[in-house]
Amino acid sequence: MEVRYELIRECSETKARLGMLHTNRGTINTPIFMPVGTQATVKTMTTEELKGMNAEIILSNTYHLYLRPGHELIKKAGGLHKFMNWDRPILTDSGGFQVFSLGKLRKLSEEGATFQSHIDGSQQVLTPEKAIEIQNALDSDIAMVFDECAPYPADRNYVYNSMKRTSRWAKRCIDANNNPNQSLFGIVQGGMYQDLREESAKELIEMDFPGYAIGGLSVGEPKELMYEVLEYTVPLLPKLKPRYLMGVGTPDAIFEGVEKGIDMFDCVHPTRIGRNGTGMTTYGRVNIKNAKHHESFKPLDPECECYTCRNYTRAYLRHLFKANEVLGLRLMTTHNLYFLIHLMKKIRNSIQEDRFVSFKREFFDKYNRND
Amino acid sequence: MEVRYELIRECSETKARLGMLHTNRGTINTPIFMPVGTQATVKTMTTEELKGMNAEIILSNTYHLYLRPGHELIKKAGGLHKFMNWDRPILTDSGGFQVFSLGKLRKLSEEGATFQSHIDGSQQVLTPEKAIEIQNALDSDIAMVFDECAPYPADRNYVYNSMKRTSRWAKRCIDANNNPNQSLFGIVQGGMYQDLREESAKELIEMDFPGYAIGGLSVGEPKELMYEVLEYTVPLLPKLKPRYLMGVGTPDAIFEGVEKGIDMFDCVHPTRIGRNGTGMTTYGRVNIKNAKHHESFKPLDPECECYTCRNYTRAYLRHLFKANEVLGLRLMTTHNLYFLIHLMKKIRNSIQEDRFVSFKREFFDKYNRND
Repeated sequence: MEVRYELIRECSETKARLGMLHTNRGTINTPIFMPVGTQATVKTMTTEELKGMNAEIILSNTYHLYLRPGHELIKKAGGLHKFMNWDRPILTDSGGFQVFSLGKLRKLSEEGATFQSHIDGSQQVLTPEKAIEIQNALDSDIAMVFDECAPYPADRNYVYNSMKRTSRWAKRCIDANNNPNQSLFGIVQGGMYQDLREESAKELIEMDFPGYAIGGLSVGEPKELMYEVLEYTVPLLPKLKPRYLMGVGTPDAIFEGVEKGIDMFDCVHPTRIGRNGTGMTTYGRVNIKNAKHHESFKPLDPECECYTCRNYTRAYLRHLFKANEVLGLRLMTTHNLYFLIHLMKKIRNSIQEDRFVSFKREFFDKYNRND
Repeated sequence: MEVRYELIRECSETKARLGMLHTNRGTINTPIFMPVGTQATVKTMTTEELKGMNAEIILSNTYHLYLRPGHELIKKAGGLHKFMNWDRPILTDSGGFQVFSLGKLRKLSEEGATFQSHIDGSQQVLTPEKAIEIQNALDSDIAMVFDECAPYPADRNYVYNSMKRTSRWAKRCIDANNNPNQSLFGIVQGGMYQDLREESAKELIEMDFPGYAIGGLSVGEPKELMYEVLEYTVPLLPKLKPRYLMGVGTPDAIFEGVEKGIDMFDCVHPTRIGRNGTGMTTYGRVNIKNAKHHESFKPLDPECECYTCRNYTRAYLRHLFKANEVLGLRLMTTHNLYFLIHLMKKIRNSIQEDRFVSFKREFFDKYNRND
């Protein structure tokens, strides 16, 4: 059965909306942030811990799992859920973005993408059909079409051709899809060109996907430009289907996305900066390696209720990082994911109570203090 | 208050014994294995997880904590327990063994040891008084005297002088000790010479320590020689005080130690080999990186109830190691510690029921199959 979006409440001042996405593995509350488990593990975390902090859905990467350990192994294991011990929904990307990120290491044609594996340098091919075959084998709850993500900046002609190809590939993905339990989402492309976004949305909507992502953003363009594209692109999408902004996970961009009607977000940002020693806190970012925390016996975020903040001091976290201890990576990752997951919950509550705009203001009043 | 050893039951066929060690932070059951938290963290683990697998006491290293983050910081934090969020007993070593392991980087005199920090190359000094000052500041429940650990092999004269110095240093440690909540254990030295072990034990027993360690073993000598030394050294020690064999953590040496009357063990072995991909299982060691586990969907140890074995397959664990994922280090460490902690519990049960010898035989019947 395909996922079904239920609209619960709309903000009276912005396009923010509260909803539920019903899947075969349970219902998730939107707007939502999806932690990223690139290699069938959200880095440093157990799935038990993810559940403990109320992660409702995670994302995993087709490109990485295809190369290692291979989708056939995961299929034999009973699918990605069983392989990694996670029984809540999983969204898999198509591998498209990763392949295009390889730059000179890949070649594109109408058929698909040829590229060199980042693991062993071997020659590999991803096509729309192959990306779907892999995702069918992984048995994720939501699969993504194989798209071409245009770089930024790119001229109109390049973006036009790329967008049209994405539409043709989307159709091939639908035709190849062979897993009735999986919902396939379309990806709107068109770069920073409003008419191309319109054309892309129109073509994809005709294909009647159960959900739509907005791709080709957060690829190096100024944030204001991304917000402008969201402003005119989100309203092109069906009201009663989920809208997913790919690769976005900072508080400012999440608030802007929600405000413009986005329901789903994912990004490696919180886990990556956590492993690098940076915490996202109520009062802004904290670099725990900074010498000023040497004798700080307060929690990373005094207003946070996560395992890290309830039990450990900044001085201890700093020590773990200085001493290269794995526990430091774990505790910072735990905090950052908890912080974002609970931020989304507060955002949902604020929409429910129709005070999203004032909540956003209150949040940044503290977040921008940076102390 | 000093720790107090209570003898519960003795094996009728060997010197194995069941006991309880009462400390200010609760009672621990002996024979016991102590996980090692070198840098104020048992590598990759939270203290919550250690409690979850019934770790009753951990060990931490004076040498490492002195160099980083420094005992003054830990004292300001309220002691090592509070710093690392562990409220059960902690035993700290004296730094002696680590310093002597530095080889050419250290110099010995009657005063103490001068050495180069492995972190920044700075010149450092550890004396009996300094080792006690540091441990007093860490506020561990059990502290160890600063001893000189003779290498193997070493001639009788060298070992004699080293043993006599250890006795003089032990006395200086007692005089320097200034923390009434801490129990200071003596360390019997004397290398592989029976008469020197006897002289060392006699001198230390006169100082009336609340517990005794046997040092200078597991330093490269054949295992049979270590067992021989234990055979004649353990009976030299007071019956109603705990006996601690330092640096031992393999199943074979643990069984031999228990059989000869040892109550306490510690070693980095289970955590270190775990991080290297080796599991200690009911059926012997398993190297999870081995290609034969690629499609193995059974648990690491089919007879184990740990979090890892209840939830993950060998194929998944292997994938995590191949992909350099931190979760792999965690899951293997979790298993190995659980395995040893529960092995000790089974050993205690077998002594309680006076079937230690048959339990040992049954254990190795399976362990030596190596499949």
